[in-house]
Amino acid sequence: MKRTICNSLADKLYSRGFGDRDGKCIELSWVELAYLSEKKILDYDFENVVKEASKEVSNFDILFIVYRDLRERGYVLKDKGEYFMGRKNYLMAFYPLSDLDYFDVNEFIGKQYPLILSIVDFDGEVTYYLVDMVEPKGTYFKNPQEKLNFEIYGKRAFVFSNLQDFENLTYGRNEGSWGHLSLLEIKYLAEKGVVEKSLQVGEIYEIYKDLRERGLIVKSGFKYGTHFRVYENSMEEHSKYLVHMISEKEEIQKISRAVRVAHGVRKTLLLAHNLNGKIVYFSISWIRP
Amino acid sequence: MKRTICNSLADKLYSRGFGDRDGKCIELSWVELAYLSEKKILDYDFENVVKEASKEVSNFDILFIVYRDLRERGYVLKDKGEYFMGRKNYLMAFYPLSDLDYFDVNEFIGKQYPLILSIVDFDGEVTYYLVDMVEPKGTYFKNPQEKLNFEIYGKRAFVFSNLQDFENLTYGRNEGSWGHLSLLEIKYLAEKGVVEKSLQVGEIYEIYKDLRERGLIVKSGFKYGTHFRVYENSMEEHSKYLVHMISEKEEIQKISRAVRVAHGVRKTLLLAHNLNGKIVYFSISWIRP
Repeated sequence: MKRTICNSLADKLYSRGFGDRDGKCIELSWVELAYLSEKKILDYDFENVVKEASKEVSNFDILFIVYRDLRERGYVLKDKGEYFMGRKNYLMAFYPLSDLDYFDVNEFIGKQYPLILSIVDFDGEVTYYLVDMVEPKGTYFKNPQEKLNFEIYGKRAFVFSNLQDFENLTYGRNEGSWGHLSLLEIKYLAEKGVVEKSLQVGEIYEIYKDLRERGLIVKSGFKYGTHFRVYENSMEEHSKYLVHMISEKEEIQKISRAVRVAHGVRKTLLLAHNLNGKIVYFSISWIRP
Repeated sequence: MKRTICNSLADKLYSRGFGDRDGKCIELSWVELAYLSEKKILDYDFENVVKEASKEVSNFDILFIVYRDLRERGYVLKDKGEYFMGRKNYLMAFYPLSDLDYFDVNEFIGKQYPLILSIVDFDGEVTYYLVDMVEPKGTYFKNPQEKLNFEIYGKRAFVFSNLQDFENLTYGRNEGSWGHLSLLEIKYLAEKGVVEKSLQVGEIYEIYKDLRERGLIVKSGFKYGTHFRVYENSMEEHSKYLVHMISEKEEIQKISRAVRVAHGVRKTLLLAHNLNGKIVYFSISWIRP
């Protein structure tokens, strides 16, 4: 099956984004060949092309379904192998994945941003997520000055003197004559010298701390099913971000759930990962390209 | 610290749900004692009661926060140890958990339904989920009769004859001159004798099959971040359920994300688990008690 086109069609196809130029000829990728065969622009048997292509390209099915979907949405695409460079109103890189795949932080960390994850689901439909690497920043740098005495009972720190000041400073919950804080808050306040005992908490603490150090106010994201909800300046505004810690390789399925929640409540979802001590943040949102 | 009350207060407290009756006396639980001390109905030092209670009851912090929250919402509560029986407009069992806990299918399978999970988050706030065990049923029992030839390429089955009939019968996706199906669909159609080859798919297949056998139409739930979206009668209606497979012990955090999505799109979330070959379904929804 010849993937090189040298006749009068070559120029025309090249101007529509097909093929790599080689003198007067163009060299088509398998995905392009399949697309042009399906559309009967080239006179190959589509079924045969799919068969051959699948032998040569391991994720041909996913690549082809995404390529075709974008072409039908009016994009001019350049096949870059693992991704497609697409142009309609703007130029954007589309990365095809299956809903059974993983978002691999190490793989995505070095890419050009923003980019668009293009995910083929069980039904064969494609969902598009705009991903960017961001540096979230807030303006809230106040911390309590007064020392705080607490006792840990179970999973929470109990305080029996008035906690009003701490609650005003966005830590813990004041119940009147007593109050309680999460262990993450206690750990952070210990680093700030406000409480004396320190303690062991999970790896999520590094994300909590990084967000606080960026001037952001960090509260539970439980109601949204994410780790944190985050305020930029004050708790009198709506929270701006939902932040979810991800592992090095995170199920696309799991990310999709968080994206959907954030979309529904009009907040920005940030995926946070501790990459050798530096916290990196990916913003991710649902788009229709 | 005496938890038995025999004076004139005993009757009054008992009528408000406090204590176990023992002749003329009542025996208070630690949670009740703490609550009555905090409210200064009993003359104990609240801080001391919390300290003692935490020694005796491992999850006292979570139990107490939920108990107090419900009392302040106007519930009369009976302390049953691992749960509270609450009465306001209706009688309901409240099961306290922390957002760091797990939903353990084996533990919950034998309970009286419906019940209410009462989950304390990082901020010390309580979120309530109404849980019921249900038997979802639909009315769609049609299956294709014609044989279907396919080839598996990558993660999908490709079909090169007209797929129109299959798409009409809610299987796969028709792209005109070709079509594609998921491997779950192929596996199920193989069991129905429609295709000849069978194949290995993951444990999720048992859920897919069970739903189909119940007369439900099963499509991808990817856009909602769940495993399936499910139609009761036809795809011309909106899908009624989102179905998510859970493991024997599932993180409450993960469940909370799925509940939030379902709430946002007004569908019913079903958690599905394969319990020794029988698929059990829990419906779960966010409520404000």
